Amino acid sequence: MSHSEAASGRVDPPESAPQGFRRIKLVLQYDGANYHGWQRQADVPTIQAVVEDTLATIVSEAVVVHASGRTDAGVHALGQVAHFDTKSRLPAAVIARALNARLPEDIAIARADDTPADFHARFSAKRKTYCYQFHVGEFESPFFRRHFEHVFRELDVARMRDAAKRLVGRHDFRSFAAEMHAVEDTVRTLYSLRVLRIPSGSRVFATGDGFLMHMVRTLAGTLLKVGLGKLDLDEVDAILAAKDRRRAPAALPPHGLFLWRVDY
Amino acid sequence: MSHSEAASGRVDPPESAPQGFRRIKLVLQYDGANYHGWQRQADVPTIQAVVEDTLATIVSEAVVVHASGRTDAGVHALGQVAHFDTKSRLPAAVIARALNARLPEDIAIARADDTPADFHARFSAKRKTYCYQFHVGEFESPFFRRHFEHVFRELDVARMRDAAKRLVGRHDFRSFAAEMHAVEDTVRTLYSLRVLRIPSGSRVFATGDGFLMHMVRTLAGTLLKVGLGKLDLDEVDAILAAKDRRRAPAALPPHGLFLWRVDY
Repeated sequence: MSHSEAASGRVDPPESAPQGFRRIKLVLQYDGANYHGWQRQADVPTIQAVVEDTLATIVSEAVVVHASGRTDAGVHALGQVAHFDTKSRLPAAVIARALNARLPEDIAIARADDTPADFHARFSAKRKTYCYQFHVGEFESPFFRRHFEHVFRELDVARMRDAAKRLVGRHDFRSFAAEMHAVEDTVRTLYSLRVLRIPSGSRVFATGDGFLMHMVRTLAGTLLKVGLGKLDLDEVDAILAAKDRRRAPAALPPHGLFLWRVDY
Repeated sequence: MSHSEAASGRVDPPESAPQGFRRIKLVLQYDGANYHGWQRQADVPTIQAVVEDTLATIVSEAVVVHASGRTDAGVHALGQVAHFDTKSRLPAAVIARALNARLPEDIAIARADDTPADFHARFSAKRKTYCYQFHVGEFESPFFRRHFEHVFRELDVARMRDAAKRLVGRHDFRSFAAEMHAVEDTVRTLYSLRVLRIPSGSRVFATGDGFLMHMVRTLAGTLLKVGLGKLDLDEVDAILAAKDRRRAPAALPPHGLFLWRVDY
């Protein structure tokens, strides 16, 4: 779970499924481009609202779907996990197929399974992995631009890996968090921060016990500057030590970011 | 070049660039989803119209852009080749950058080079390669559905390869061509028809001296039925021999098809 979520009062209790209800775990994929993030809001489309409203037509009752965490506007998911409780007796696989038949094209259910009544998508999560994608090329490709941040110049992946090593571990990541975290506990454990070459560019994978708002996009922006030779390794240390948002590079845009998987 | 194009009266002469004009070769990428194909038409958006109109604003003169061939509505390109003649003295790389800055996000210029005055994107083409993409999975992914045809069941790639061998060579492909080819020369040479496994499914690559309308999508549809066990290898022989469009499976939809490259 994320401490920031607890502190901001958005937490619902880690309740078990009530008597007479089953708990179902969902794994979701979505292209976030057309949504104002996961969390239901008035007057704007969100993933949670679309999934809940579609699910309600299938199980014939109002449903609240709890995700492992909110994703921001424009951020994608390959492995978002969520749970809901229902009195419906429909098999989980039937619910998944019915959802996939009715959901818009940019949201899909990868799995649906009955799960113990005390499983909680947010509170039971042990690790989350995000991926930030860079496309390196002389021009911006129509096939990458929706899901990759475009970079004109080749990145120095070896230097990015050196910088990444300095960021891994249990640290106060306040320098890398959005300002709204200013009064909260901003200590997190970053288990790994890996940079992988792929044919079209590179991917940054960040695995941790929880992430502050904009943290992955700010870490990716820091590694990008290192990879472009615009930031020294010592400066990376200094940014982390400063615990000051103004010291770190800007967060990169959301279209390159994927919630890759959640481990329990 | 395509004989069908000659027979239907759409051919412009294989002229060299006129005196005082340079000839520039373009390599284009586009996502075809939002266009009614390559060729300019009244009242609907096409790739040719967008590229020509954008180019005109850069070189300050009306321009006709000749492609290696038309792609149908909804078909994509990774390596479409085209040429145009201009009196502009702007370096080709500057024209490319200016185009990329002004073109919509789903069209990009991968290269622009000065080329000999007798190069012709259509008539100089020796081989074209198309790719048809299948995504195999239990649900339709938001990240594949725009560019892959979705198949629920695993395909028998070995059988598809056996069928593909029977289709390679110089044949009358009338069974695989749209009906509008009924009165034309429908003999083409298919140099290769390869089926490649990829992590998410498979790709069919077709290389030939030219393709009839809907030919690649009908070949892909035939291989798909073979891969699903719904069509025997002997039936593939019979379809080819019949020279009758009614014998072959339906053409697959355009979103899985890419004009992959053109060789000169």
